[in-house]
Amino acid sequence: MQTIKGGITAPAGFRANGINCGIKNRKPDLAIVFSDVRCRAAGVFTTNRVQAAPVIVSRRHLKRGWARAIIANSGCANCCTGKKGERDALVMAGAVAAALKIEPADVVVASTGKIGKPLEIEKIKTAVARLAAGLSRKRGGACARAIMTTDTVPKETAARVRIGGVPVTIGGIAKGAGMISPRMATMFAFFTTDANISIAALKAALGRAAEGSFNRITVDGDMSTNDTMVILAGGLAGNRRIEKTGRDFGIFARALEEVAAALAKMIVRDGEGADKFVEVEVRGARSAREARMVARRIANSNLLKSTIYGEEPNWGRIAAAAGSAGVDFRQKNLRIYFGGNLVLKNGAAAAVDRGRLLRAARRRELKLAVDLGSGRETAVIWTCDLTPEYVRINAV
Amino acid sequence: MQTIKGGITAPAGFRANGINCGIKNRKPDLAIVFSDVRCRAAGVFTTNRVQAAPVIVSRRHLKRGWARAIIANSGCANCCTGKKGERDALVMAGAVAAALKIEPADVVVASTGKIGKPLEIEKIKTAVARLAAGLSRKRGGACARAIMTTDTVPKETAARVRIGGVPVTIGGIAKGAGMISPRMATMFAFFTTDANISIAALKAALGRAAEGSFNRITVDGDMSTNDTMVILAGGLAGNRRIEKTGRDFGIFARALEEVAAALAKMIVRDGEGADKFVEVEVRGARSAREARMVARRIANSNLLKSTIYGEEPNWGRIAAAAGSAGVDFRQKNLRIYFGGNLVLKNGAAAAVDRGRLLRAARRRELKLAVDLGSGRETAVIWTCDLTPEYVRINAV
Repeated sequence: MQTIKGGITAPAGFRANGINCGIKNRKPDLAIVFSDVRCRAAGVFTTNRVQAAPVIVSRRHLKRGWARAIIANSGCANCCTGKKGERDALVMAGAVAAALKIEPADVVVASTGKIGKPLEIEKIKTAVARLAAGLSRKRGGACARAIMTTDTVPKETAARVRIGGVPVTIGGIAKGAGMISPRMATMFAFFTTDANISIAALKAALGRAAEGSFNRITVDGDMSTNDTMVILAGGLAGNRRIEKTGRDFGIFARALEEVAAALAKMIVRDGEGADKFVEVEVRGARSAREARMVARRIANSNLLKSTIYGEEPNWGRIAAAAGSAGVDFRQKNLRIYFGGNLVLKNGAAAAVDRGRLLRAARRRELKLAVDLGSGRETAVIWTCDLTPEYVRINAV
Repeated sequence: MQTIKGGITAPAGFRANGINCGIKNRKPDLAIVFSDVRCRAAGVFTTNRVQAAPVIVSRRHLKRGWARAIIANSGCANCCTGKKGERDALVMAGAVAAALKIEPADVVVASTGKIGKPLEIEKIKTAVARLAAGLSRKRGGACARAIMTTDTVPKETAARVRIGGVPVTIGGIAKGAGMISPRMATMFAFFTTDANISIAALKAALGRAAEGSFNRITVDGDMSTNDTMVILAGGLAGNRRIEKTGRDFGIFARALEEVAAALAKMIVRDGEGADKFVEVEVRGARSAREARMVARRIANSNLLKSTIYGEEPNWGRIAAAAGSAGVDFRQKNLRIYFGGNLVLKNGAAAAVDRGRLLRAARRRELKLAVDLGSGRETAVIWTCDLTPEYVRINAV
C-alpha cells in the first residue's frame, strides 16, 4: 500500500466542496461529497441509545447498499430534535437530490455540533445550490475543513493498492476531537474509492476497518450521538470485482483499515487540549474482550491521563486502572511497561532508572503496556493526555 | 437521629491521635484510633484486582469480627510493594500492638498515598510510641487531619440515636478527594460506635451504609487500590444488644448510613479541584442495576462535568451520556430535568426559559434527573464538576 496526496477526492470520479452557510459565524460549516456514478455504499453508526436524526435517516438510506452523495453540516448535531429533526434531515437530503438530479435516498446525511438545538434548515436549503455548483476535485480539502468542530487541523489521507494489477485508490476525511470513544465509528469518517467491489465485500471491509481504527481510540470516554462512518465505492478504477472472500478482498480491506487507522490517529493527536499521543497495549488476557476492557479502562483513567500531561512516570495509576476494569487476574502476575521499561513485576516495583522513565514521560508519543499474565489475547487502544485545556474547551 | 459535634471519638470509650512521623515533610501523616475495650468490628474494602498490602492484612485481621485499634498513614499507599509491603503492614500492626499491649490481629492497618513506593516503615515504627502516648478523646480532629492527602479539609461527623431508650453514638472520619469511584468504600472511612451490637448486625449495617453512601459517589471514575471502610463497636453505651433483625437494627443501620452519607458528600464537595456538588438521579429504569449504570455513566462524563464547571446548561451531554451506558431504552420516552426544569421530552427540547437554566447552572449545588421511561427502579449518584485544577493537582 502506498500513501498518496489528497483525501476524499483522490479516487477517480469523486468531487467535493465545503462552504459557510451561516450556521457558524464565518467558518465553513457545510460539506458535500459527490460521485460521477452511483456507488455501492456502506455505513457504520454510533451505538448510543440516543441517536441524532441524520443517523436515523442515513441508516435507512444505506439499507439498499447504494448512494451517490454525502451532505454534512457542522455547528449543530440535529440530535434530541424530535420529529422536526427527522424532517430537517430529509429536507437536507432532498435539497441535495434536487440540485444534483439524483434520488433523495442516494444521499447520506450527517450533522455534528451542539445537541438539543434545532437545525437552521433554511440556511442549508438556500446554500445547497451554491455548494453543488462549486463541486470540484480540488475542493476535497475545503470539504474536510467544513466538517471540523473543535478540531484544530483538517484530517485527510489517501492510499493506492493494486488489485489484479489495476491501481485502486481509497480516500478519506474525518473529524473529531472530543466526545470520542466510539464503539462504531468516530464523529465523522467519510471514505471514497474507485474500487469495483460488491456491497457485501464493502460492508465487511468497512466493519473490519472500524475495528482496527476508530473503535481503538478514546479521547475522553464520551460516546457521541452522531458517529457516522461511510464509504462510497464508484468502481471507476476498472479492477476485477472484489468479492467478500479471496486475496483481493484482503488487499482492499487492509488498505482501507490502514487509511482509517491513519485518520483515527490524527483524531487522537488533535484530541481536545491534547499534548501527547498514547498507545495502550494489553497482553496476556484470557480473551480479546477482556484485553479491550482493560485497555479501555486504562485509556480512560482521568488520573493517569493527568499524570501523562504532567510528564510524571506515575505508573501506579496504570496498576490501579487495570485492576478496576472488572477483569479477573492475579496481582502478582501483572507486569507493567512504561515507555518500554519494565516497572512492575512480581507485585512490586522493578529496578529501573528514574531518568529513563522521566525521558519516556517527556516524549510526545508514549507507549504503555500491561501484561495480565493470564492468557494470550491482546488489545491496543490509542488515546491522549487530559489537560486543563480540555476542560476549558468543554466548559460550554 | 441527631447530628452532634465531634467525630471518631464522640462515642464512649474511644481515643485517637494524629502526628507527623516524617513520611510527609511537615503535615500530619500517621493516625490512630483506639478503644478502651475490645470491639466487634467489620470492614469493606476495594474491589480493585490490585490491592494494597494493608488491605490484604486488614481483611485477614477482621475475619474473626474483632478489633481494638486502627493505624493509618498518608503519603504512601504501600501498594505494588510485593512481599516487603505485606511485611511492613504487619510490622505496623505489631508496633501498635506492642505499644498498647493488645493482639496484633486486633489492629486494622490502612495506608494512602502514592502507589509503587515502598513504605518507610522505620519512621512509623519509631513514631508509634509517641502516637500512642498522645491518645486522647480531644485528638479526634488530629486523627482526621493525619489521613488527608489532597483533601483540603478534614472530614468528621457524629450522630446520636436512642436504642431501647438508651442513647447510642456513632462517629466517623473519612478522607478522599481523587481516585474516587468506589464499588466498596472510599479511600478511608473509619467509624466508631458505643453501641452494643452483634458482629452479624454490624456487618450488615456497614454493608448497607456503604451502598447508601460511598458506593454512590464518584469524583473521577478512578477506583483506588486502598479503599478501606471500617467500624469498631465497643458496646459501652449499654443498650440492649442490637441483632440483625428488628426495629433496633433499622434505627442503628439508618443512623450509620446517614453518618456515612454525610462523610461521602463531604468527599465529593472536597473532590480534587471541584467547584460544584452534583446529584444525578435516574428514574424509570427496568432494574436498580441499570439505573446505577446510567447514573454512573452520567456522573463520569468528562464532557458533562466540564460543562458544569463552565456553568452552561448544556443538557445534550446528559442525553449522550445516558445513551452510552449500555442500557436499553427508547429515545422518545427519555426525559431530562436540569436543576428541576424539564428540558427534554418526546425526543426534543422542552419549552423552558434559558434564564432559569442559567441560574440553576450557576448554583453551587446542581440536581440532574433522568427518567428512562422503561420501568420503576431508581438510583442516585453524587459527583462534582471537572475543572482545570483537577488536572493540575493530578499532573504528578
